[in-house]
Order: sequence, then C-alpha cells, then structure tokens
Amino acid sequence: MKLQTPDVFEVMQDELDRVDERVAAAARVEFPLVATMVDEIISAGGKRLRPLLLLLSARAYTYDVDRLVTAAAGVELLHTASLIHDDSIDRAAIRRGKPTLNARLSSGAVILIGDFLFAQSAMLAAATESTRVVAIFASTLGDICDGQLREMLDGHRIEQTRAEYERRIYGKTAALFAGAAEMGAVLGQAPAADIEALRDFGRDLGMAFQIVDDILDVREGSRVLGKPAGNDLRQGIVTLPTMIYAAARRNGSAELSRLEALVEGELTDESAIDDLIGTIRTSGAIEASEKIAHAFAERARRRLDDVADASTRAMLGELVDLAVERTS
Amino acid sequence: MKLQTPDVFEVMQDELDRVDERVAAAARVEFPLVATMVDEIISAGGKRLRPLLLLLSARAYTYDVDRLVTAAAGVELLHTASLIHDDSIDRAAIRRGKPTLNARLSSGAVILIGDFLFAQSAMLAAATESTRVVAIFASTLGDICDGQLREMLDGHRIEQTRAEYERRIYGKTAALFAGAAEMGAVLGQAPAADIEALRDFGRDLGMAFQIVDDILDVREGSRVLGKPAGNDLRQGIVTLPTMIYAAARRNGSAELSRLEALVEGELTDESAIDDLIGTIRTSGAIEASEKIAHAFAERARRRLDDVADASTRAMLGELVDLAVERTS
Repeated sequence: MKLQTPDVFEVMQDELDRVDERVAAAARVEFPLVATMVDEIISAGGKRLRPLLLLLSARAYTYDVDRLVTAAAGVELLHTASLIHDDSIDRAAIRRGKPTLNARLSSGAVILIGDFLFAQSAMLAAATESTRVVAIFASTLGDICDGQLREMLDGHRIEQTRAEYERRIYGKTAALFAGAAEMGAVLGQAPAADIEALRDFGRDLGMAFQIVDDILDVREGSRVLGKPAGNDLRQGIVTLPTMIYAAARRNGSAELSRLEALVEGELTDESAIDDLIGTIRTSGAIEASEKIAHAFAERARRRLDDVADASTRAMLGELVDLAVERTS
Repeated sequence: MKLQTPDVFEVMQDELDRVDERVAAAARVEFPLVATMVDEIISAGGKRLRPLLLLLSARAYTYDVDRLVTAAAGVELLHTASLIHDDSIDRAAIRRGKPTLNARLSSGAVILIGDFLFAQSAMLAAATESTRVVAIFASTLGDICDGQLREMLDGHRIEQTRAEYERRIYGKTAALFAGAAEMGAVLGQAPAADIEALRDFGRDLGMAFQIVDDILDVREGSRVLGKPAGNDLRQGIVTLPTMIYAAARRNGSAELSRLEALVEGELTDESAIDDLIGTIRTSGAIEASEKIAHAFAERARRRLDDVADASTRAMLGELVDLAVERTS
C-alpha cells in the first residue's frame, strides 16, 4: 500500500522545485557520457527529505530564500555524492531501482564523479556565505566518513553494543539530518535554543529513518526496494534486527553459528541465505526494532515542543510520520 | 645530484612545523590499522610546496598566523586526499617511494580514507572563518576534479591541442597552487591587485611544476621517482613530451602507429614499451618541453614585479627555481 503524499510536499513544492533546479545546475558536467549518467541519478531522485528538513527548519524565522535553497541543494548533493561512493564501496549494482554508476563505469570514474559532486556541494555551502553553515557542512561530511569507516571496519561483528550501532548510524545517516536542520535554523537566524532543538530533532529523525531502513532491508524483497532482501547481511553488515535476533540465541547454538558463517562470508548457498533471512524476519526482531525506531521518532517529536510555530511543527511532524511509516 | 636545500625552508621552518602538526592532528583516525597507514603517507611527506606558497603569499601583509597555518594545513590535506584517490584511480602501487594505500587496502577503504581526509581539509578551511577562503577552497576542489575527469576521459588521445593539455594540468595541479597563493594573500588582507598577481603567480608556478613532472615521468627511471619511467604513457595518458614527439612524426609512420598502439593499450610487450619511451626521451621532446616549463616559470617570476616586499619576492623566486630545477 502506498502512503498518501503528505501535505508538506504540496506546501513546499515551489521551494523544492528551486532546490531541484540548483542541484541539476550544479551537477551539470561537460562530458556527455558522464552528464547523462549523473542526470539520471539526480532525476531518479530520493524523497528529498534532507532539503525539506532544511527548508522547514528556517520556516518559522527570518531567512533569505535564495541562500536557503542554495544550502538545501548543497545538502542534497552531498547526500548524492556520498551514495555514489557508498555504492562503489559496496559494489552495489542497483540504487533507487536503477543501475548504479558502479555497474556501468570503472571504479576510477565513479570515485571521480563522487568527488566532483562533493566539490559542487561544498561550493553551494560556500555560496551561502555563512561561515557557520560551512562549518556545519564540513563537520557533517567528517561524521559521514566516520560512520562509513565504522561500518566498513567495525560493522561485521555480531556482538556489538547498541551504542556502537547507534554511533555508526549517526554518522552514516543521522548526522546529515542533524546538519540539515541546524543549517536551516542558522540561516533562519533562529534563537540559539531553537537551533539546538531543531538539530536534535534532525538527529533523532535521522536515527529513526536509518533504523527503518535497516528493518526494510530485512523485511522487504527486491520488488519493493529494487535490491535483494537482506542486502546488508549478504555483505556481512550487522544491523539492529540481526543484533536483536542474535542476542536472543544461545551461545554455540546452530542458529548463531549459521549467522556467523554468513557474516564471515562462509555461507554462500543462496537458498540457505534466503532461509536465514526469513528466520530473522519472523523471529520478532523486526517488531523489536520497530519499537526502537518509534522511540526515536517520539523523541524527535518532543524536541519540537518548545520551538517554531504550529504549522511548521505540524509539517516537521509529517516528516517523522513519513520516516517511520514508509514501506520503501 | 641533489639540490641544496634552499634558504626558504630554513626561514619558514617554524611555520611549516606548525602546519605539519595541524595536518597530523587532523588526519588522526581512531582505527589503528588505518591510522598507521595514513600516518605513513602524511609523514612520508611531499615537498610541502603548497603550504609554503600559502604562507609566503601572506608574508608581506598583515595576518593572523594561526588562521594562516590552519589554511595551509587544509591545502596540504586536500592535496594528500586527492593523491590517495588518484592512486586508487590509477591503481598505482607506489607513491613517494612507498606502497600506496591502494596496494594494501580494498578500493572501498581507499575511497573512504580519501573522503575522510577531504572532510578534514574542508573543516580546516572552515576553521579559518573566512567565507572567501572557503569559497576558494571549494572551487579549487571543483577544478581538481574537473582536471582529473579530463585526464581520465580525454587524456588518452595523441592528437590534442596545447590548450587542452594546459586546461587539464591547470585542474590537476595548477589550480591548487593558484588557490593556495590566493588564500594566503586573502588571509594577509593584501590589496586586490596583489591578491590577483599572487594567484596568477601560483597558477604559472603550478603549470611549470606539472610540466616538469611530466618531463620527469619520461626522463627518469624508477630509482629516482619510486615509480617506473613512462608511468603515464604506460597507462595511456598523453602528456606534453609525448604530444611534442607525436607532432614531429609523419601521419601513418611506423613510429606513430607504435605510439598509438601503446596509448590504446595494444602494445603490451615490456621491452618494446621501454624502447618507445627511450625513443621519446632522446627525440628532443624533453628539451622542447623544458623550454615551455621555463616560459611558465619566467611568467610566474614577472607576476611578482609589482607585489610584495623584496624578501618575500626572493623566497617565492626560490619556489620557482625549486619547481623547475628539481630532479624528482
């Protein structure tokens, strides 16, 4: 079942269109081959949640719409650049239901195109002419890299603490949500307390969003996501549902050994892998993970208690609903 | 014969040490495996020409030394990050006489470590709290990516114009020299005309530097450079000496066909490749390229006529000597 498009997208349509235009202009490349591919990725589009969060975070205050749109485009491009490098790191062949650059270009070209889009996003951040926005932008990029390094170097252990998992997904996802909200509030010249509350809102929203992503990865098949179910686990990456599943198994049990074999790349039989993912799916780990995602969503909502006007609060609340109730 | 260390390094030793400390601190990573490798790359060090150029460009004016050192560290880290991605793109195994990350880590890890250092360099640029420095930083990164994309997509043709070659090496190398000089002059609050002259100086110096690099690539063997002679050409990349060599051969000649075969990856016999590189080396193309490098060096020197004090001018002149007279 597809969710009804929430009102927030209608209300914000004009500004989002302007963001899309800025993104497309910044991503324009002179080389026809590359241009076509970058264009496809950009226009395949995501949910535009990050630029929307940035725009909404300024809405109750006083802002220059052009600088706001510029920053929002920078955030969306930073996200796109990081997806491109991510796909290259994971050797992913499908993203947003389409073949990745990775599947069509040499790894060198993919690295360069990602770098090029990073550069463009940095130029957009610089174009806001706010040193504070630039500082948020740069440290967000640092957090993203930190999260990705953690996933690569440290994400392949079944025994990891919730704190380790949360730090990882903070870097991977929540940091950019937090940064987007903070940039918007800063450009809106919001009071210091509101900037902090909106940043915290963004972080908690991002945490909920990534946990739902990790749930969908286990729960949904390729028809919905455009990638195989259990994609992370197939790459040996342990996320919350797997951690919860593992924590409920006895040490030395056959189930735990089978999971260890998968994570260590020793289980390669496709139907055995499908079986194991099916077992995790029906073990209760999904429901337990959903509870944790909802707790973050609830925390995000409460951050808004003292800030912004009612209409902004309602629209930011819609973003929360969208993050936790989505099915893809 | 090794060149005598020029005075400029002695005069600037304290500030360069501070730059090194900032670079090392910014590149510190929490993961021991990665930390050791990044540390090796950083401490293997290059010639530190870019940070030196930035420091010298402010010297005749009024500056805050801490912000200057911060920007210089940002420039050096940006350079290091771009070398790391470059090595991954070229699949280079040796850099600065040591095995590259590429030779020791998965390509995914190399991408991430490069991104991490990009992020750190952006944070240093942001820490200068100068929107103008940040804007220069971001557009320099854009130019570097443009140059690298051009090399990858367009550098494998024997028939290319000097203008195409120059645009390529501007992005690949001269943009960062130009940006470093401009950032220094901006942080020194130099008059607008001086900022422009110093930026132009940096660009011409960078052009001379890269042409000398391309000459050394053909002229010197692995003993001096820590990589095989004719490394670019072995990857099918056409640089100035090769262009000059090719322009002097008749269309359809055996020599030209052999060169085309090498560039297109069809000549794989190592001794035939060595032979061809030897032929280019003794064809007069090296000397013709040197003349062009010297012309850029001369242009760089003239940019200084109206700017800075005599001692700064002398030290910037030493950088020019160093760029064109080096043997590695």
